Amino acid sequence: MKIGIVGLGLIGGSLGLDFRRLGHQVLGVARRAATGEAAIACGAVDQASTELQSLQAADIVFLCTPIHMIEAISIDLIPHLSPQTILTDVGSVKGAIVDAVTPHWPNFVGGHPMAGKTEVGIAVAEPHLFAQRAYVITPVATTPTTAVAVLRELATALQAQVLTCTPAQHDRAVAWISHLPVMISGSLIQACLNEPDAHIRKLAESLASSGFCDTSRVGGGHPELGLMMARYNRDEVLRSLQAYQQEIQQLTTLVATDQWAALAARLTENHQARSRFIQSTPEPDTAAP
Amino acid sequence: MKIGIVGLGLIGGSLGLDFRRLGHQVLGVARRAATGEAAIACGAVDQASTELQSLQAADIVFLCTPIHMIEAISIDLIPHLSPQTILTDVGSVKGAIVDAVTPHWPNFVGGHPMAGKTEVGIAVAEPHLFAQRAYVITPVATTPTTAVAVLRELATALQAQVLTCTPAQHDRAVAWISHLPVMISGSLIQACLNEPDAHIRKLAESLASSGFCDTSRVGGGHPELGLMMARYNRDEVLRSLQAYQQEIQQLTTLVATDQWAALAARLTENHQARSRFIQSTPEPDTAAP
Repeated sequence: MKIGIVGLGLIGGSLGLDFRRLGHQVLGVARRAATGEAAIACGAVDQASTELQSLQAADIVFLCTPIHMIEAISIDLIPHLSPQTILTDVGSVKGAIVDAVTPHWPNFVGGHPMAGKTEVGIAVAEPHLFAQRAYVITPVATTPTTAVAVLRELATALQAQVLTCTPAQHDRAVAWISHLPVMISGSLIQACLNEPDAHIRKLAESLASSGFCDTSRVGGGHPELGLMMARYNRDEVLRSLQAYQQEIQQLTTLVATDQWAALAARLTENHQARSRFIQSTPEPDTAAP
Repeated sequence: MKIGIVGLGLIGGSLGLDFRRLGHQVLGVARRAATGEAAIACGAVDQASTELQSLQAADIVFLCTPIHMIEAISIDLIPHLSPQTILTDVGSVKGAIVDAVTPHWPNFVGGHPMAGKTEVGIAVAEPHLFAQRAYVITPVATTPTTAVAVLRELATALQAQVLTCTPAQHDRAVAWISHLPVMISGSLIQACLNEPDAHIRKLAESLASSGFCDTSRVGGGHPELGLMMARYNRDEVLRSLQAYQQEIQQLTTLVATDQWAALAARLTENHQARSRFIQSTPEPDTAAP
């Protein structure tokens, strides 16, 4: 299969490495020629270009750019494609993207491989990045079944665990486990920075260890990623933030009113429940969407 | 030196391993005889007992029990000690402990080695646990300088970075970087559990990956630890929770009112500031307290 990849960063580059290993021909497009050269050098693509028209022979094109560029790039790309070409993306938000791109290209199917690293860019692309990780596919009523089947087959070949759901279900679920964590984690850093006593602030910096490190990690990550989550999944991020505020308020009340038994019960529930999120490997669905 | 350790868990056991390696004689006391036997077997103590009177020859005693037992154990221990014996503890809260124990034993000095692991118990004790980690010593006006000097010397021999500050300063700083993270991290789990749609809840569990894992880690930890932080550092935990609520409220307002430039600035500030907490190695103070 001829596979196009627009955007040769961590995700695009890692997809390319795997697809080439699986015997596909990979055509890459990057904004900068140097990125394409790096992708060729590391084996992520067979050929690279800065021009979208280089993808005209592709059977499927993966859009792996930042979220806010996906619609514009798909509009630029479409004139070069044959009607059979499947278009898909890897954005961490699905509703806004599916709504934006589907009217331009009915043969579009949204996707979201749940893989990431702290670092970004082609230099950190790696094979097998998607193995044993969830790959969410979000067709809508008008999505051609062939497009879904082809994407499912490719994702399965990556050894990813394929799940299908609606864009709205995806966005609500990832608000909880991906976008809300970024917001609450960032607010931890912000709250510490706003401690008015400079001596305490300095002492806190000196004493911070693994607990602070882990809890603040995603909140101290790439600012653009957090911004895109909030902008493109705004309603679900807001909904989760509002629910979270209630939880924090209830917790604060328990402490303020010395309700230690109730606090202990709550902490115990959290302790027990966490393993359901952490040990859980996604259950791949087998039903055709 | 003869060093007594009451409570042979991760911290008590690890202190014992290091102090024996450094040539001291270590006398351990555990509630259960089996724990003492395990401590002898792994080399954490020279001798072990379930009786506090076994520590009567100790030059210094480290209280390494859970926070809520420290005062009661110190009261039971004191009749067996000679007046020169230094008493110290390793609790993660200092004000409440220093206030409680000092009136009983003026030769008490509070301490807090900032080392921990997810697991607890003598089985996970390890040598060098405190190396390159902060060891906070919190003398008050009445604390004998000898007690501080001896503890400082022992902590330095562990290769820990010794800092001194008041109990109040310690408690305010650790509220930010240790206790608040536990509270906000636990509330993330709680908020996810309270998603009313069972299908979304299940999907969220399936999709949770490293971001959720890290952000929820300390909130899903040992319930008793979180409870003790809240009970024994109640006022500072409340203060940090209230400041944090304001941050979350401000963030929510930015998203709700589409203030993307302001949100981007905030996320960028967090991104840049985090390294001050993470890269920071404590600056050991050299001044006598």
